[in-house]
Amino acid sequence: MHPTTPQVTELVERTRQLVETTVLPLERSSDGDIERAGGDVVRLELQEAARQAGVFAPHAPVEYGGHGLGMVDRAPVFEAAGYSVFGPLALNIAAPDEGNVHLLQEIATAEQRERYLAPLARGEVRSAFAMTEPSPGAGSDPTMLATRAQRDGDDWVIDGDKRFITGADGAGFFIVMARTSPGDSGATMFLVPGDAPGLSVGRHITTMDKSMVGGHCEVSFRGVRVPGDAVLGEVDRGFANAQVRLGPARMTHVMRWLGAARQAHDCALGYVAERQAFGSRLGDLGLAQQLIADSEIDLAATRALLLTACAALDRGERASHETSIAKTFGAEAICRVVDRAMQLAGGTGVSDDLPIARLYREVRPFRVYDGPSEVHRWSIARRALRRHQAPA
Amino acid sequence: MHPTTPQVTELVERTRQLVETTVLPLERSSDGDIERAGGDVVRLELQEAARQAGVFAPHAPVEYGGHGLGMVDRAPVFEAAGYSVFGPLALNIAAPDEGNVHLLQEIATAEQRERYLAPLARGEVRSAFAMTEPSPGAGSDPTMLATRAQRDGDDWVIDGDKRFITGADGAGFFIVMARTSPGDSGATMFLVPGDAPGLSVGRHITTMDKSMVGGHCEVSFRGVRVPGDAVLGEVDRGFANAQVRLGPARMTHVMRWLGAARQAHDCALGYVAERQAFGSRLGDLGLAQQLIADSEIDLAATRALLLTACAALDRGERASHETSIAKTFGAEAICRVVDRAMQLAGGTGVSDDLPIARLYREVRPFRVYDGPSEVHRWSIARRALRRHQAPA
Amino acid sequence: MHPTTPQVTELVERTRQLVETTVLPLERSSDGDIERAGGDVVRLELQEAARQAGVFAPHAPVEYGGHGLGMVDRAPVFEAAGYSVFGPLALNIAAPDEGNVHLLQEIATAEQRERYLAPLARGEVRSAFAMTEPSPGAGSDPTMLATRAQRDGDDWVIDGDKRFITGADGAGFFIVMARTSPGDSGATMFLVPGDAPGLSVGRHITTMDKSMVGGHCEVSFRGVRVPGDAVLGEVDRGFANAQVRLGPARMTHVMRWLGAARQAHDCALGYVAERQAFGSRLGDLGLAQQLIADSEIDLAATRALLLTACAALDRGERASHETSIAKTFGAEAICRVVDRAMQLAGGTGVSDDLPIARLYREVRPFRVYDGPSEVHRWSIARRALRRHQAPA
Amino acid sequence: MHPTTPQVTELVERTRQLVETTVLPLERSSDGDIERAGGDVVRLELQEAARQAGVFAPHAPVEYGGHGLGMVDRAPVFEAAGYSVFGPLALNIAAPDEGNVHLLQEIATAEQRERYLAPLARGEVRSAFAMTEPSPGAGSDPTMLATRAQRDGDDWVIDGDKRFITGADGAGFFIVMARTSPGDSGATMFLVPGDAPGLSVGRHITTMDKSMVGGHCEVSFRGVRVPGDAVLGEVDRGFANAQVRLGPARMTHVMRWLGAARQAHDCALGYVAERQAFGSRLGDLGLAQQLIADSEIDLAATRALLLTACAALDRGERASHETSIAKTFGAEAICRVVDRAMQLAGGTGVSDDLPIARLYREVRPFRVYDGPSEVHRWSIARRALRRHQAPA
Repeated sequence: MHPTTPQVTELVERTRQLVETTVLPLERSSDGDIERAGGDVVRLELQEAARQAGVFAPHAPVEYGGHGLGMVDRAPVFEAAGYSVFGPLALNIAAPDEGNVHLLQEIATAEQRERYLAPLARGEVRSAFAMTEPSPGAGSDPTMLATRAQRDGDDWVIDGDKRFITGADGAGFFIVMARTSPGDSGATMFLVPGDAPGLSVGRHITTMDKSMVGGHCEVSFRGVRVPGDAVLGEVDRGFANAQVRLGPARMTHVMRWLGAARQAHDCALGYVAERQAFGSRLGDLGLAQQLIADSEIDLAATRALLLTACAALDRGERASHETSIAKTFGAEAICRVVDRAMQLAGGTGVSDDLPIARLYREVRPFRVYDGPSEVHRWSIARRALRRHQAPA
Repeated sequence: MHPTTPQVTELVERTRQLVETTVLPLERSSDGDIERAGGDVVRLELQEAARQAGVFAPHAPVEYGGHGLGMVDRAPVFEAAGYSVFGPLALNIAAPDEGNVHLLQEIATAEQRERYLAPLARGEVRSAFAMTEPSPGAGSDPTMLATRAQRDGDDWVIDGDKRFITGADGAGFFIVMARTSPGDSGATMFLVPGDAPGLSVGRHITTMDKSMVGGHCEVSFRGVRVPGDAVLGEVDRGFANAQVRLGPARMTHVMRWLGAARQAHDCALGYVAERQAFGSRLGDLGLAQQLIADSEIDLAATRALLLTACAALDRGERASHETSIAKTFGAEAICRVVDRAMQLAGGTGVSDDLPIARLYREVRPFRVYDGPSEVHRWSIARRALRRHQAPA
Repeated sequence: MHPTTPQVTELVERTRQLVETTVLPLERSSDGDIERAGGDVVRLELQEAARQAGVFAPHAPVEYGGHGLGMVDRAPVFEAAGYSVFGPLALNIAAPDEGNVHLLQEIATAEQRERYLAPLARGEVRSAFAMTEPSPGAGSDPTMLATRAQRDGDDWVIDGDKRFITGADGAGFFIVMARTSPGDSGATMFLVPGDAPGLSVGRHITTMDKSMVGGHCEVSFRGVRVPGDAVLGEVDRGFANAQVRLGPARMTHVMRWLGAARQAHDCALGYVAERQAFGSRLGDLGLAQQLIADSEIDLAATRALLLTACAALDRGERASHETSIAKTFGAEAICRVVDRAMQLAGGTGVSDDLPIARLYREVRPFRVYDGPSEVHRWSIARRALRRHQAPA
Repeated sequence: MHPTTPQVTELVERTRQLVETTVLPLERSSDGDIERAGGDVVRLELQEAARQAGVFAPHAPVEYGGHGLGMVDRAPVFEAAGYSVFGPLALNIAAPDEGNVHLLQEIATAEQRERYLAPLARGEVRSAFAMTEPSPGAGSDPTMLATRAQRDGDDWVIDGDKRFITGADGAGFFIVMARTSPGDSGATMFLVPGDAPGLSVGRHITTMDKSMVGGHCEVSFRGVRVPGDAVLGEVDRGFANAQVRLGPARMTHVMRWLGAARQAHDCALGYVAERQAFGSRLGDLGLAQQLIADSEIDLAATRALLLTACAALDRGERASHETSIAKTFGAEAICRVVDRAMQLAGGTGVSDDLPIARLYREVRPFRVYDGPSEVHRWSIARRALRRHQAPA
């Protein structure tokens, strides 16, 4: 796909084999539902298999047993893992853990890294990022943050409700965003153990996607007390520091889901290469070719935008514009690719006889997760306009 | 919506009330899965409620207890019923029964009407239309028909396999398309009782949609013997006679699914009218307004094309072009409307807390059922071209 | 297309013949540029031909020599005329005269009708509607109206600048919108003779479209004095009264441009029906069929939405929602149809050897004229949301 | 945009300045019509200015006075030049000369290079590539090639008609594709001086685009005799050798037109950043932001696909799939960007007061030139399918 090191090429190939031989069969037998497949038990088995295959934790620092890949190098490996919706679990690169590893690596103290990052990178615990809230709190608009943390001596006491917290059920720890000052920017991130008194994980909000261990949960914080060294980054710098996580996390989402789109596309190609109608193979009919070509274009454009943004991140740029663009285009393109695959496979495509319908349910939420396309477009437009703004 | 008789207006309003008070609660408690809701038992209860409400069988001939509405008049009633995915069952206007009523009314003999049409119109039995086959038989391309019927004295003996036969499980009778002569047109329709020896209903092909009683099944015919008067229409005229069913059946599909799209759209409007973000109601943000307006346009255009085609059918025209256009545009527009509703409701939209994600699964197959969009486009283009063809 | 009276059917057929034999040749020889064709001189010749053909002024009241057709009946006649971009001129149904006839018919006094409507309906004069202004005046947002009219005794004195005033050069009279009170609604319409002292027509703003006699001009009003009976409708009711014009004028725009789109589509069909490539006629290639089918669908949907809105107007409804939807969809669909035609005809399609490129230039502005699509979408969304608004 | 050498960065900046100060004013005063601007005379003046600015011939071999840039490095320079539709002329990188330089550099003999490449690279002559023919010859389908070359002793005699030959009028020499053997592949390229007896340039086919010197012409070959060393590449290897030109030429087209799209986008941003309506700047309205964001995405995706393909070409790959994808997406995206710019600027956008409408006319043919999108999609789909083809 693009020039890369032999190390990456080998990781991609080994990941591909692991996915094909070990991960995909499990995805198929459980209809892609991680709970039905066995949840955390299966996660640990898959991670052991990935360790055996030498592909575990491609993103994590070498000191914690990872391969230490940069963003550009992650792209093909994550895509190969994401070909199966359980692949990222196997490599320990599923959301939200993968993004949390990145965040902790960037801004945690040495002590925090030892306590939280090390076991997370090794797959010993899972984690969650507790940001979004029920209405009228922070949904797409982070400035509406309602969860509060108040100082009490050297401690902080956290109160509030979170919603749609991915991986919450069974998480070893949470990174919690809470308001510590009034105004748009006065937020702080805290590291909170999963068994902290006052923290309770409520119901799972069931969604179209089924591949994430620990679900998307409601979580409440009632007088949750944490010590001063639970602050991740600096007080009142929570939003700014979270940006460290956001850009790369968006890109790894695209990488993974791009793999899933490719599974659907391959499946459809296999179907139309064999099925006959109207005097030829389906794949030789012009109206099918239109769908195939459009999906090839969408896959290529997603990958090209992804690499452009990853290269900027690897150069140390914040790359908000590039990651917003790659995420917005990618999420929509990926949905289109899976949708076209479904159309190409006709009645079989909308049935459970093929994985396509399931993959569609899995990728559709991506146009909402990590910022809906509309919110990204709004940011993209404002940045573009700022370049041309008339001086006052 | 459009000028119509007081009788129709009243039917629409009574249907709306029945759906709101009786049908929707059942849809919601069962997540729109008719088997989970109770299958045929619930069907009969809902139909009794519809009878009480005076809205049962709006399409069926008056002599069989129906309201005898033409196509244009059916449109708003069916749309009101389809607002819930169980509504058509209640009114006995779900596929495939509704289309079979129409077909029998048009081409069955008096005796066949008494034996098959009367109980079907009254909701006493269900039926199936057995046309599509596993590869390499008839899928999108009817000319690949492989099921055969051979004369044996006065009888016919049917052999072959069907696939994706909606409503097959529990059907009182089947209308079976079988090859009776070689070539593209040599097909005949037969009326076959559900308990005919040699007929067996196999596995359910599970699909994204869950609202159809009797599922989408595999059905096999092994030496199924029927008498000569089981021929529906004429021998070797099966394809031509099936056209009588196809056009109207496409349009009633659009009517019903249009109702479902409207449920999703209303749900999204309710969401964005209340939820706040970025300093205003979501519904006041321009990027949300784009989605809302596009859905209003799609709903209006679907309805306008539908009525144009129905008016042609009511005038006795075959209206293949008009119904193909309305079906193709309608199926795609309906999916877009539900998809936009999902996007408008964000994380909640992709969850089971709202009906939108479920409605999406329900409507998506419509771009495949009753002829994939691609096959319709192919027909539409060929007809257009024929108008301009250079004389030989 | 749709059931109508024999009178309308005959008008359509006679219009079709006039266009084919008399109007199209002129369009072709002048590349669709009315000034190059001869401007007002040619307009009068074409109108005489239309009178001879018995199709002149289908929309105008019978008492002024017209055929008095309602909106639904106008649709096929105007479409047949619009097949050539000069056709509407011939029938005296081009913008802005046609909309002005409608407006005067609805709200002018008897005296005003005699003085302004009668000669306009007979084609003896042309007219203009002077509403839009240069920035920071009224563009898409009418409430920014900056032109003012002040009472002076029994007279009014008008001052201000207008821009993009279609047909201004050579207009016998102007309908001028001017502010008479502060606030969003305090506007009044005035009837101003073209030779009024202080009124001057400035430069032509040259645009992509070239078919409108009198151009799109800048017009300035410097102390233009008119008597009290020059008020059209009531003082301070200008915006409300202009609505009478807006809805129907949008629909007749759609009718005319729909005809132009059809010319392009027919031209492309003719091309692909003959030209060979890749072993078959272009028109038999699937990727061409996709384009053809999509255009057939767009034409049908535009027509269906148009008739729905026209039926509402004929019932006396204001039909703002219906006309906004039909205009927005229609303008975009018409552009798509012409664009696809261009694509179908390849290199020839972008050349002047076919009329398609010219027709594209002619229809593209329609997505801006009469309210840009974005402004209409904004209105459509707000109306939809209002239906679902939570009570305070 | 992407990491590159200081040499390239400087070339880009100098090109930007040349375009802004020297080229754009000329584009504006001539409405982008190169004939109106002065044709070849102006070309030579602009090229002298580019030489003075040190940006002449960035693509040409250093030995012929160029900068010898590879494909990836050309991208930002060509884009900066293409910002004005006359910019490529100034740098001597306009089609078809730029592609011909590339082709000659790759496959010409030393003698041919001296005679044809050297003066072409220095801007002393122009050239044309004579491939496409009138129906029923080679249009989109090269295998329909009808022009023939027959051996006569050591010479070849060429007979046939070409059509749509860009730059033909005034070309110093032609590269002519002619059939030398029957069958799909039996074609040969010949180098033919512009003044060869029997070669005549016919009418200009006027098209939407107006920036190419020498027009798009009909050219006829009547017994045109050339010596044996006029063969470019090998006999009967014409199609295969032309591939050397096709991929890179597609990409440089994208680079140039991408610049033009950026001019339109910038122009629209400037407009909406200043113009007020509905109580705010146009650019702050959500429906405008949608258009802006979509164009930012389209520009970024085009550039990303372009660089991906160029990197493959620089690695020496043929990259047919990558260049087809980048060309198809890029041509459509570029048209969308300019179309959105027009919409953003409203009535002014469709007028000649801004360059947008002109830029639209200029870029629209790109969806047809160098292979219509449909032909590229067909190739893309077939390649994709081949990867999945069932073994026989």
